[in-house]
Amino acid sequence: MGYTLAQKIIARASKKSQVQVNEIVEVDIDFAMIHDSSGPRRFGSTLEKLGATVWNPDKVALISDHFVSSSDSTEASILKLTREWAKKYRISKFHEREGIGHIVPVERGYITPGMMYVGADSHSTTAGAMGCFAIALGSTDMLGVMATGKTWVKVPESIKIIWKGKLSKGVMAKDMMLKSIQRTGIDGATYKSVEFSGSAVDTLPMDERLVLSNMAIEMGAKAGIIEANDIVIDYLNERNVSNFEVVTADKDAFYFETLEFNANQLEPMVALPHSPDNVKPVSAIDHFEPLDQAYIGACTGAKYYDLEIAAQVLKGRRVSKNTRLLIAPASSEVMRRATKSGIVETLLDAGATFLPTGCGACAGLGNGVLAPGERCISSTNRNFPGRMGSGSEVYLASPATVAASAITGRITDPREFL
Amino acid sequence: MGYTLAQKIIARASKKSQVQVNEIVEVDIDFAMIHDSSGPRRFGSTLEKLGATVWNPDKVALISDHFVSSSDSTEASILKLTREWAKKYRISKFHEREGIGHIVPVERGYITPGMMYVGADSHSTTAGAMGCFAIALGSTDMLGVMATGKTWVKVPESIKIIWKGKLSKGVMAKDMMLKSIQRTGIDGATYKSVEFSGSAVDTLPMDERLVLSNMAIEMGAKAGIIEANDIVIDYLNERNVSNFEVVTADKDAFYFETLEFNANQLEPMVALPHSPDNVKPVSAIDHFEPLDQAYIGACTGAKYYDLEIAAQVLKGRRVSKNTRLLIAPASSEVMRRATKSGIVETLLDAGATFLPTGCGACAGLGNGVLAPGERCISSTNRNFPGRMGSGSEVYLASPATVAASAITGRITDPREFL
Repeated sequence: MGYTLAQKIIARASKKSQVQVNEIVEVDIDFAMIHDSSGPRRFGSTLEKLGATVWNPDKVALISDHFVSSSDSTEASILKLTREWAKKYRISKFHEREGIGHIVPVERGYITPGMMYVGADSHSTTAGAMGCFAIALGSTDMLGVMATGKTWVKVPESIKIIWKGKLSKGVMAKDMMLKSIQRTGIDGATYKSVEFSGSAVDTLPMDERLVLSNMAIEMGAKAGIIEANDIVIDYLNERNVSNFEVVTADKDAFYFETLEFNANQLEPMVALPHSPDNVKPVSAIDHFEPLDQAYIGACTGAKYYDLEIAAQVLKGRRVSKNTRLLIAPASSEVMRRATKSGIVETLLDAGATFLPTGCGACAGLGNGVLAPGERCISSTNRNFPGRMGSGSEVYLASPATVAASAITGRITDPREFL
Repeated sequence: MGYTLAQKIIARASKKSQVQVNEIVEVDIDFAMIHDSSGPRRFGSTLEKLGATVWNPDKVALISDHFVSSSDSTEASILKLTREWAKKYRISKFHEREGIGHIVPVERGYITPGMMYVGADSHSTTAGAMGCFAIALGSTDMLGVMATGKTWVKVPESIKIIWKGKLSKGVMAKDMMLKSIQRTGIDGATYKSVEFSGSAVDTLPMDERLVLSNMAIEMGAKAGIIEANDIVIDYLNERNVSNFEVVTADKDAFYFETLEFNANQLEPMVALPHSPDNVKPVSAIDHFEPLDQAYIGACTGAKYYDLEIAAQVLKGRRVSKNTRLLIAPASSEVMRRATKSGIVETLLDAGATFLPTGCGACAGLGNGVLAPGERCISSTNRNFPGRMGSGSEVYLASPATVAASAITGRITDPREFL
C-alpha cells in the first residue's frame, strides 16, 4: 500500500521513511507565516519571558495584513509593535501593506513543493496549492514553532476530490469549491487532508489553484493539497526559485473517500447566509433581493486573475446606483500589475472603489464593513453571522458573479455579461 | 467708500443695495453642503419633528466623506442613515465615496462666483476660491438653513492678503498659506473675511486656489475669498456652467489690514506640532527626526495637481523603508484621472499605498490613523494634538515636501528632487 501526499511530506519532515494515519509525529518546519493579528502581539512577550528567540528568522514571513492601514490608534499601535518585533528578531520577510499573508509568501516564491508549512491563521491551507502540507496553528502552538522550529502533527486520513472536464467561461475555482462544500458540508472533511486532482484542477492558473486549497478549511480539512505540476514549477522558476523537489502521491495510496465532480456541468454557485455550505446554483436562486454591497477582496478572491475576470464582466458597463462595488486587491503587486495593464482603469470607469490591500472587511476590519440589515455579495470565503459586520447578510460567490451582481444590484449569473 | 467682496456678496444675498461691517443681516442661501458626519445623523430627526422639509433639495449637496468606506458597523450604519435620508428628501446631489465635501461640489460645477455658500464643516471656506462668500455653519444652524434656505450673518471686516511675484518650482500654495499663517497666527484673522490677491494668486491653477481659501480658517477667518478670474471661468465653462456673474471688490473698498508677501522669495514651509502657525522654512529645521508616515490626503492636499507634483518628485525613486507613504485622493475623479494619466502607476512604483477617497486620517477616521509616538508629515490642514491619532506628531507641508520627505524618511526640501 502506497502513501498519500500528506503522508509523504510528513514522513520527510519527521525524518521517517514512512508515517501511518493517526500516528503522532514531530516535524521540522520548513516555513512559518504569522501576521499582525496572530503574531507578535499574541506571543511576543512570552517568547521573551521564555528566554527564547526565533529559531530561524529567514524561515518566517511576518505579514501585517489585518490592521492595515490602521483605522484607529489601537490598530496603529499593533502595527507599530509588529514592526518593532520584526526588527528586533531580524525577520527579513516582513511585509506591511504589501498584501495578505496567504498570498504574499506565494507571490514572493517563499513556498515550494514538499514543504512542511504552518501559518497562524485558519486559511493557511492556501499554501497547499504549491504542493506542500500547509496547516493552520493557533498562536500558542505557533509560539512553540517560533522557539524550536518544530511542532507535532497527527497524520491525517486523506480524501480525494477529483474534478474532471473543463470549466466553462464565467465559471471559476470558487464555484468548484462552493459545489464541493455543498456536497461535504462544513464538517465533511474534518481533520482530513484533501487532495485535489483531475483535468479541471490541473489546468487551473496559479491564482485559481490557491482558491481550492484556501477553502479546504471550509469543509473542515486540515490541509488541501494539489500536487505541483508545470504551472507551479513555471511560476516558481519565473521567481528564480528552482531549489525544490516535487512530492507526488503513490498510485496505490489509500484514500478514506473519493468524491468526483464534472466541471463541464458546473454553473456559477452562491453560498447563502450564513454558512459556506448553504450553496445553490445562481440559476436556482429565486429571491433576488437588492444588494447593498459587492465586495471583491480577500485571499480567496482578489488576485490578479480575479480582477481580470471582473474587468471582463464590467468593461463598458456601470455598477448599479443602489450597490457599491468595493475592491481590495490581495496584494500591492496585484494592484501595481492591474494598474499597469489597464484593469484598474476599467474597474474605476465602471464605478468601483479601490481599497488598500489587506484582509479588510472579510475579517470585519478596515474598509467595507457592513451595517446591520445590509446585504453583500462577496468573493471572500466565509459568511458566518456577523463576520463582515454585525447583523449583515453575506452571499459568497466568485469574483465573476460578484462583478455581474454589482451591475444589476441583484445576484446575477456572470455568463450574461461574458 | 466702496465695498469688499464679502460686503457685495452679502448685500446681494440679503437683497440690500449695500451692507456695513458688523451689521447683522438675513441672507438667502444659494448653496449648502452637508456631510455624513455633520448632516442627517445630527439634524435629520429634528427636521422631521419640526414638520419641516428641505427648502430646496437641488441646492443641497450631501457628501458622505467621513465614514467611507466604513471600518465598523457603526460607521456603516451612519452611511446607511445618510443614504436613506438623501433618498427621502430627494437630494439629487448626493455623493458617497466620490470625494471630499469641499472638493466634489467644485468639481461638479455646483459652485459659482458670487454665491452665498454654507457648509456644515469648518473647511467650508474652501469654496471661496470660486469667488463666492463661503462660510462654515454648525449642524444646528444648518438645520435652520435646511428648513428655510436662510441664515443670518454679521458682516465681517475684510483683510487683504497680497502675494506678489511668482512661486518657484517645488513651492506650492500650501507654502503660501503656511507662511501667511506664520505671520497672522491661528487667531490673527478671527471673523475676518480674507481676500487673496496679487500676481502669485492670479496665476495659481484651480486646485491650488482652493488651498488658499481652505486654510483661511486656520488663521481664524470667517471666509477666504479670491475674485474669480479666467481660470475660474474656464474651469466652469469646461463643466458647461456659464450662468453666473463674477462679483468684484470696489477699488476703494476698506480693508481692516493689508498683508503683503513676495512669492519669489518663498521656500517650502513646514508647520511643526502642534499648531498650523508653528511654522518654519524647511531649511531652518535642524532636527531631522525620522518620519513614520508621509500622508498625501485631504481637501487641502490630494487633488490632481497635488498628485501630479508628488509624482514628479517620486518618479524613478523609492519611498524610504522606514516610512510609509499613504495617498488618499481628494475625489474618485482625481483617482480616475491620475490612473489614466499614469500618475498612479508612478506613485505605486515608488512604493505608495493608495487609500480610498475621503477625509480619512485627517479627521482621525479611516485609514492611516497614527499610533502614539508616531511622527507624520502630512499634506492636510491641521496638526492639533491627537487629530490624526492620540499622542502622535503631525508636520504640515505641501504635497511636494511630503513626497520628498517620504523618499528620505526625514523632512526634506522637495527642490532637491525637482
